[in-house]
This record gives sequence, C-alpha cells and structure tokens, in this order.
Amino acid sequence: MIDLHLIGIGTGSPDHLTRAGESAMRAADVILLPRKRADTADLLDVRLALCDAVLGERGRVAVFDLPVRNTAAPYLGAVNAWHDAIADAWANAIARHLPGGGRLALLVWGDPSLYDSTLRITDRLRARGMTLSVTVTPGITSLQALTAAHAIPLNTIGDPVTITTGRRLADGGWSAGADTLAVMLDGQCAFDTIDPAGVTMWWGAYLGMPQQALAAGPLGEIAVGVRTRRAALREEHGWIMDIYLLRRARP
Amino acid sequence: MIDLHLIGIGTGSPDHLTRAGESAMRAADVILLPRKRADTADLLDVRLALCDAVLGERGRVAVFDLPVRNTAAPYLGAVNAWHDAIADAWANAIARHLPGGGRLALLVWGDPSLYDSTLRITDRLRARGMTLSVTVTPGITSLQALTAAHAIPLNTIGDPVTITTGRRLADGGWSAGADTLAVMLDGQCAFDTIDPAGVTMWWGAYLGMPQQALAAGPLGEIAVGVRTRRAALREEHGWIMDIYLLRRARP
Repeated sequence: MIDLHLIGIGTGSPDHLTRAGESAMRAADVILLPRKRADTADLLDVRLALCDAVLGERGRVAVFDLPVRNTAAPYLGAVNAWHDAIADAWANAIARHLPGGGRLALLVWGDPSLYDSTLRITDRLRARGMTLSVTVTPGITSLQALTAAHAIPLNTIGDPVTITTGRRLADGGWSAGADTLAVMLDGQCAFDTIDPAGVTMWWGAYLGMPQQALAAGPLGEIAVGVRTRRAALREEHGWIMDIYLLRRARP
Repeated sequence: MIDLHLIGIGTGSPDHLTRAGESAMRAADVILLPRKRADTADLLDVRLALCDAVLGERGRVAVFDLPVRNTAAPYLGAVNAWHDAIADAWANAIARHLPGGGRLALLVWGDPSLYDSTLRITDRLRARGMTLSVTVTPGITSLQALTAAHAIPLNTIGDPVTITTGRRLADGGWSAGADTLAVMLDGQCAFDTIDPAGVTMWWGAYLGMPQQALAAGPLGEIAVGVRTRRAALREEHGWIMDIYLLRRARP
C-alpha cells in the first residue's frame, strides 16, 4: 500500500509553501523528485533547496530521470505515451525505495490540478493494479503568482475568466465568451496571432523566483518587447516558464 | 504612507497559510479584520484563530464592521456603492489605528485576485488621494481546495477551463467554448438551469473547514441531492460558501 501525497509547492519561492505542504513533506518516508534535461537543472535545484529548508536534510529525497516527451509526434498521442513512460519511472522508483509500501511525496510545481500530469499518472498506476491512497495538498499556481505580482484582480466584477493554453489560442483564436483570458504553456508567443485592439496584457516569467520578470500594458505596445525579452531570458537561463493575462475592453 | 499588505489566507484552514502569508502577518503593525452580519461570525472566528495561531496574541488585530450590500438594487450599481462604503470603513480604521502611517495587513479569503473586492477598494483609497503601497501575497482559492479535496485535475489534457459565477450561468447558460466550468458565488443553484446530459459535477462546501462537505457524480443524478444538502447545511450553520466544477463530455 502506497500512501501518495501530491504537494503543490507554488512556483519556485519557498515562501509559497503552505503549512499543509510542509507537514506533508515532514511526514513522507520518501520524497521523489524528477530530474529533467540538463538545461532545467534549476528546477531540480529549487525542489532540493525546498527540501533543505523544510527538512534540513536530503536523506529522504530520491531523484528519478523524467522521460522526455516526443515533440515531433501528434500532441495528444505523444502526451499519453509520455505519461505511460513517467508511470514506468514512478513504478521503478517505488519498487526500489518503498518495496514494503509507505508514504511517498511528490512536490508538484504550482498546483496539482492545473495543467499538470501527476494525477493522470496516478490513475495509470491504479489501472496497473497498484494499491494507492492519494492526498492532494493545493499550492499557489503561476496564475495567482502573476496577479499577485501585478497586484491586479483576475476577473472584472462578476465576469468570467477562461484559462487556456498557447496552443489553443493559436489554433482557435479568442472565441466569444470571457473577455479575460489567462494563457499558459505558450512557447510560441500565440499573443502575436490575435488582434491587439483594445487588449491589455499582463505578462510574467519565473514568477516567485529571483529572476522574476514582469511587463504590462496595451498588447499592441508591449507584444514585440515581450517576445524579444522572452527570447533573451530563455537564452540566458536555458529555459523559461511564463504566463500572461489578456483582457479586452467591451465593445 | 500606508504599506498595505493583502494576504490570501486560503479557505478556512490555517494549513492553507503560506510562509509568505505568515511573514506578512508578523510584519504588520495592524491586522484589520471585517465583521460581517452575526450569522457569519464563524468567518471572523476563523481569521481570529489564524491570528492566534501565527501571532500568539491579538494586540495588533483591529475589527471593523463590514457594510452590507443592497441586494434589492441592480447588481453592478449595488456592488459599486458597497465598495465605496467599504472604502469609507477602511479609511476610518486607518485614521484611527495608523494615524502616522505604517504596515496594514488584510487577511483575504482565498486569493485576492479571484472574485474578491479588496484590490478594487484599494483603488478607491488611491483615487481619494491616500498614499498607498500595495503588496499581494497569493493564497489557496476555493477552486484549488475543491480539486484537491476530490483529487481531480481542473482541466482535461490541453483543454481550456472557464471560471464563472452562478449569476452568469443562470443568465447566459453554458456557452460554447470550454467544456469545464468552475462556478462560484452560486446562491441559487444555477446548475439546475442547464441540460444535465453528459455533465459530471464535483461539488464542495466549507472547503478546508471542519464541516467540509463533498459530492460528485453525474449532474442528473446528484443535482437534487446537492440542492437539498446545501439548504440543510445553510440552515444548520447559518451561512454557506460552496463551489462546483462541471465537465461535459465531448459530443
């Protein structure tokens, strides 16, 4: 029996950790951390620093190599194959570090509910017959870190908000419905594909981390600057995680 | 000069508090708490308990009476008038407790970005000529508390999510666009107004509090039960805060 605890840790600042997250880290027998490709070593370092800060030691920490997604294959199929491979990696790590069962914690960037695969991988382990109890501790998302950094509300009074991806915005445009759009996972600057008239943008990268970068203003005025700055930061750090909010004026 | 700190405290569990929130509470000269009408005394108690847990004392805590919104008047106008009245109450409290300026903290339910008026009231004080610096500390929203309690992802893979209100759902229905809808501020059970075919619902009330209540299943099967249970809980506790997620199957 594996007692699996998925802990939302926020977006890179140890200050985002909640009391519940801290307790769950302390209660874990093993904390399993993913190692991605070399250029995102920072992200492993952030999680290790969090373990140092909370536990004062790394005796319970186990690192596994995160499989790489095939970005050349069609999206949904590639994501599913990637999740299968991550489930294999988890199963191997569990067999090695918790052969008799116990409490396993995973430190999830942001919150486990939002554009994160951890819960889907948990489902795969269950489908393979592993006995799992799953507890989720919510964490601060990049969306909250963005609105906090800009000190702005997410919604206008009583109005809806849509959270979407860069891929969706580029493919389908900004459909009718919500006049506020939060865009995540946009590696291709999909904001360049929409009509900027009447649209305000609030952008943030590395939110909560020391290298945090922000920009805000009319989309037509700042889009080029954000694209340029994004490329420069990605070059400088080897990776980037960013998010933005778009709000259009009512006609 | 007022150094205003808006601290997201999550949805009622002291375990939702982040390290940044705790530091900001400790650094405050005054922590200003709203007292609503008598039947929501629980909510003041939760904030007071948080001050006790973090500070170990209440010497810095000041309580003000929150004005009541006119629910008989048209919505947007009533909200604006209500925000004006709250700004008056804040200005009075600031004049009384921090006449020479200082650090003022407000403990915001959930996160200050999501369906919360605190940032709008801050804008009003600025417009009246008060010199304010504003810092926002993000907090766990009821939406994250809901998905964590049910251990479900908010989005399906790569798909958008819309966050809206019960008022909007009742008025405009579930428009095209996102197949996942998070509904907040629904006092009227707007889920009863939509076609339940192919829709799954995840509902939660008092999330993070000892009286937390959950339900999940096909909307057509659980809608009546949620409506009944919601009314009974409201009767029992004198108030209710709940939220739900609806997901429709792709045709």
